[in-house]
Amino acid sequence: MDWENLLAARSKRMNASEIRELLKLLDQPDIISFAGGIPDPALFPAEAFQTAFSSILSGKRQEQALQYSISEGYVPLRNWIVQHMAQFGIPCSTDNILITSGSQQALDYLGKLFLSANDTALVTWPTYLGALGAFNAYEPTYDRLLSSSNRLPADYRDAAHAKGGAVKFAYCSVDFANPTGETLDQSARQDILRLAEDLDIAVIEDAAYQSLRYDGEALAPILALEIEQRGTIEDCRAVYCGSFSKTLAPGLRVGWVCAAKPIISKLVLIKQSSDLHTSTLNQMAIADVASACFDAQVDKVKTAYVARRDCMLQALDRHMPKGVSWTQPEGGMFIWLTLPQHLDSALLLAKAIETQKLAFVPGKAFFADGSGANTMRLNFTRTDQPVIDEGIKRLGLVLREVV
Amino acid sequence: MDWENLLAARSKRMNASEIRELLKLLDQPDIISFAGGIPDPALFPAEAFQTAFSSILSGKRQEQALQYSISEGYVPLRNWIVQHMAQFGIPCSTDNILITSGSQQALDYLGKLFLSANDTALVTWPTYLGALGAFNAYEPTYDRLLSSSNRLPADYRDAAHAKGGAVKFAYCSVDFANPTGETLDQSARQDILRLAEDLDIAVIEDAAYQSLRYDGEALAPILALEIEQRGTIEDCRAVYCGSFSKTLAPGLRVGWVCAAKPIISKLVLIKQSSDLHTSTLNQMAIADVASACFDAQVDKVKTAYVARRDCMLQALDRHMPKGVSWTQPEGGMFIWLTLPQHLDSALLLAKAIETQKLAFVPGKAFFADGSGANTMRLNFTRTDQPVIDEGIKRLGLVLREVV
Repeated sequence: MDWENLLAARSKRMNASEIRELLKLLDQPDIISFAGGIPDPALFPAEAFQTAFSSILSGKRQEQALQYSISEGYVPLRNWIVQHMAQFGIPCSTDNILITSGSQQALDYLGKLFLSANDTALVTWPTYLGALGAFNAYEPTYDRLLSSSNRLPADYRDAAHAKGGAVKFAYCSVDFANPTGETLDQSARQDILRLAEDLDIAVIEDAAYQSLRYDGEALAPILALEIEQRGTIEDCRAVYCGSFSKTLAPGLRVGWVCAAKPIISKLVLIKQSSDLHTSTLNQMAIADVASACFDAQVDKVKTAYVARRDCMLQALDRHMPKGVSWTQPEGGMFIWLTLPQHLDSALLLAKAIETQKLAFVPGKAFFADGSGANTMRLNFTRTDQPVIDEGIKRLGLVLREVV
Repeated sequence: MDWENLLAARSKRMNASEIRELLKLLDQPDIISFAGGIPDPALFPAEAFQTAFSSILSGKRQEQALQYSISEGYVPLRNWIVQHMAQFGIPCSTDNILITSGSQQALDYLGKLFLSANDTALVTWPTYLGALGAFNAYEPTYDRLLSSSNRLPADYRDAAHAKGGAVKFAYCSVDFANPTGETLDQSARQDILRLAEDLDIAVIEDAAYQSLRYDGEALAPILALEIEQRGTIEDCRAVYCGSFSKTLAPGLRVGWVCAAKPIISKLVLIKQSSDLHTSTLNQMAIADVASACFDAQVDKVKTAYVARRDCMLQALDRHMPKGVSWTQPEGGMFIWLTLPQHLDSALLLAKAIETQKLAFVPGKAFFADGSGANTMRLNFTRTDQPVIDEGIKRLGLVLREVV
């Protein structure tokens, strides 16, 4: 059976990441891995989930929990999210919220909604690898999102049209971005909004890490800034994607989109024909646990992670050779290293695994243009402090040989 | 904000179903509704789920259950499915199984994998509405799948190419199809396979209702027939989509695809970039409950549903005027009515709701060519026998006025 001829054109852009395949081999206990991007499971509110599932499945909500439900999502959960969004300057209503199976699904649906083949998506260099994966299925081209709008030529829109597509949206991770750990400051957020207005495009604001701020002051999301200017979410071009994966637990796959109603309505239709709805039971459990202990849970996670971030930053100070620089994230899960231009971190990964039993993610895959070979992503949330220190020491040994 | 210009071309095919909107209003208790397509929640194995979730969340699997997991799906669940598939003549291995969020998601992913704009999907007239919804996002054209291959002209493939696309797959629901309740007999299944070979296309076999057979003998799935001919699943063009929604519970959103490894590998990449994976916890719970009581649960459901089917068939005999015909399903959830050609069941629905407080689904939406206005779908799984009888009596009153 020769499948290749039968597959859609888009399938040519679906390739297994070599890195991901490599990292699959890393579950051996003697490897120190900074490669993952996952929360520490020891911090999950397991007891609260136990209580929630037991209460739902033994009580009056039992039948509802196991039954089909509406594509928009479980109303009490959407109502909790409405309150949550209000806290950071986003007044909205239940109808502005769609529940998705994690914020990854929101990115897939937004790609599906906006992108025809050859349309342009503006993304940062580097950007979240999973966003590129989600958008790739809709065959866009990418262009670089810079924080200052005046770097785009005046005829930018027309140039895109001339290439047979249109500029559709700017995608950005605003707080402690995956992979860099960096945060867009207030003026950069305003710049992106202005750029989006100039180009008349949407803004997709990925806020997956927003709750994990360890220091510095919280910044208003782009959607909050736009509501401030326009008076109502219904006039806003920013589409906010949130997630419970980094705060409560990723295994339940619950996230959300918050946007103007015309966008939510279209996304509901996409949800309906893509998977009908997110697990009813899981939505109920997330609603229960969020209501019971969201703030306490976030505090618990932050307390653990800030110590690990500090530990990794201090270890980098101690062990990195000259010529290596790194970000100073105010939150999130990642630190981003830049090596001298001539180095290729993918080659170094093979060496690090072999000689030091150490793993990280080479940065190239996060760049839509294939650049960034001299960068790497380090995760600090999955490893205890002594292991972080040992791992960075080993990284230092690998780098000292080549830098 | 004028969104229309920003949306992808495919969004023009995403429209809220008028019927679905109408049916939303039907949750009033005094309406008799045969409109839904959902299981009776009183039959869900709620206690078994309670035990499963409690065991998972309080035991050693707790952290794993709440954590990210592999896109392929939970291995013990895939292993259970391998045993399950073997029972009806489909020998396969864990690597031939992908867990999806319901079989609806399998249809979306298969559309994404196979269909470029203007490609042709062969579907029956009528077919599952949700399949059309899933495929529509990838902008195919539809052509009619007939059970005998010799009805397609010899130059059929070339004609599709001339229209700028290619024929990609035949989609069919084999047992007790939604919406007709009809089953493809063995020779019709062989015909579809032969047609697919002639055209060199895939076959998507939707087996969502397969376990709900009330009488007659079980028939081998198309994939089983093909394996018999070719010796191994790896040489087969049939892609089998299964679901736990009609047997255990739909609210957890767990289904699966079984196919040759090259197809599963591509679908895993799609899953990875679409929603990472189906809820880890739900996959574990489904694995536990399926292992504990799948057969007993299916027996329980069948015992309840067969009585309701018989009740509805008898009531139809009693109350339908001459000129109305209906299917005699051997399983599943639906009976399909055909009215005299000049009648429009959508108009009759408005009247039935108003004058008789009775609801059903007009058949037109199930036809890719917009025909079928004189058909309707009746669901018999959600209503107790006395109510079924009363509802069909009311339907008789509506129809007697017009037939």
